[in-house]
Amino acid sequence: MWTLYDYRDSGNGYKARLALHQLQIPYRLVEVDIMRGESRTEAFLAKNPNGRIPLLELDDGSCLPESNAILHFVARGSWLVPEEARAHAQVLSWLFFEQYSHEPYLATSRFILRHLPPDHPRRAELPARLEKAREALRVMEQQLARAPYLVGDRYSIADIALYAYTHRASEASLDLSPFPALCAWLARVEAEPRWLAMLDEQGRIES
Amino acid sequence: MWTLYDYRDSGNGYKARLALHQLQIPYRLVEVDIMRGESRTEAFLAKNPNGRIPLLELDDGSCLPESNAILHFVARGSWLVPEEARAHAQVLSWLFFEQYSHEPYLATSRFILRHLPPDHPRRAELPARLEKAREALRVMEQQLARAPYLVGDRYSIADIALYAYTHRASEASLDLSPFPALCAWLARVEAEPRWLAMLDEQGRIES
Repeated sequence: MWTLYDYRDSGNGYKARLALHQLQIPYRLVEVDIMRGESRTEAFLAKNPNGRIPLLELDDGSCLPESNAILHFVARGSWLVPEEARAHAQVLSWLFFEQYSHEPYLATSRFILRHLPPDHPRRAELPARLEKAREALRVMEQQLARAPYLVGDRYSIADIALYAYTHRASEASLDLSPFPALCAWLARVEAEPRWLAMLDEQGRIES
Repeated sequence: MWTLYDYRDSGNGYKARLALHQLQIPYRLVEVDIMRGESRTEAFLAKNPNGRIPLLELDDGSCLPESNAILHFVARGSWLVPEEARAHAQVLSWLFFEQYSHEPYLATSRFILRHLPPDHPRRAELPARLEKAREALRVMEQQLARAPYLVGDRYSIADIALYAYTHRASEASLDLSPFPALCAWLARVEAEPRWLAMLDEQGRIES
């Protein structure tokens, strides 16, 4: 059985948890408290030299880092990943957009507001990061104003990857009301079969 | 024929150019001068709402953004992408690592030093960005000390994605001598069949 090393408040980890749940793949969850440095221990760095969660450990002991690589791996060949080359490429494109243009701004702002003390010097980063987060949301809004999902008319791992932190935007002090198509898409994702809330302990399947 | 919208000094664009050249795929190159705002015009934003190069336009007029999604798309099914699921996942993992933990530090430092005036306020970002760049190089060094390429014993698009900016590290004021396995790997990449230098105008195939 696969083991997912994860921190429950991480949207990056939630991507894998949601896909595993929707695909009904059993897995073992090992909680890693990143706020206590548990992703920087010698033992963890031996599994992922980049010191980050989520990390997926396979049956042969090999480890796969990077949330979106894990997401693609667990969903490969399933209804969550289109086979057709151009649609598949668009899915990957949104996954890279998420890591480059969205996560460093929305998720990092959320992290600063949620996990660092109010007088922490990193608060100074917020105005610039939030402006970039709004730019990313505008790019998503454009796509979602003309199609129900990020890639065509099908729910895919592109939606999972972008949903993970977008639906927690209020925790990053972001107002989603200027993005009506995006808000409708959040509701659409939440109506998908076997959708699972981010912090829902019950969602995990063990066998 | 595909059209690549690109800026010649971009390592992100070079990933696609190198793969297209190694795979002997003809394409049309349209130069976009990002320093003159040509990636932010209304016409370009209609093709890529995120306003970035490289961008690949396909025969049906659809457009694919994100350098690593383009790289994966052009190389899909070729000798540059392993088929086996775990190796493929490791390749994607390095592609996400590149965009999240490497490019924003090494490439952005290079951009600040190479394209902004010496008194530009963004110079203040350099110490923090260069420290993160060295962290990324250390992660690569660990892998390359135990294997000839980033994924196992085969050259792949993972090597192309990481080579693109790593081999220009000196332009970001980074010294690669503390990373001997990485330096040997740079030479190994440059010995691959049909390798093409980053700014080599001759490398482009048109037909």
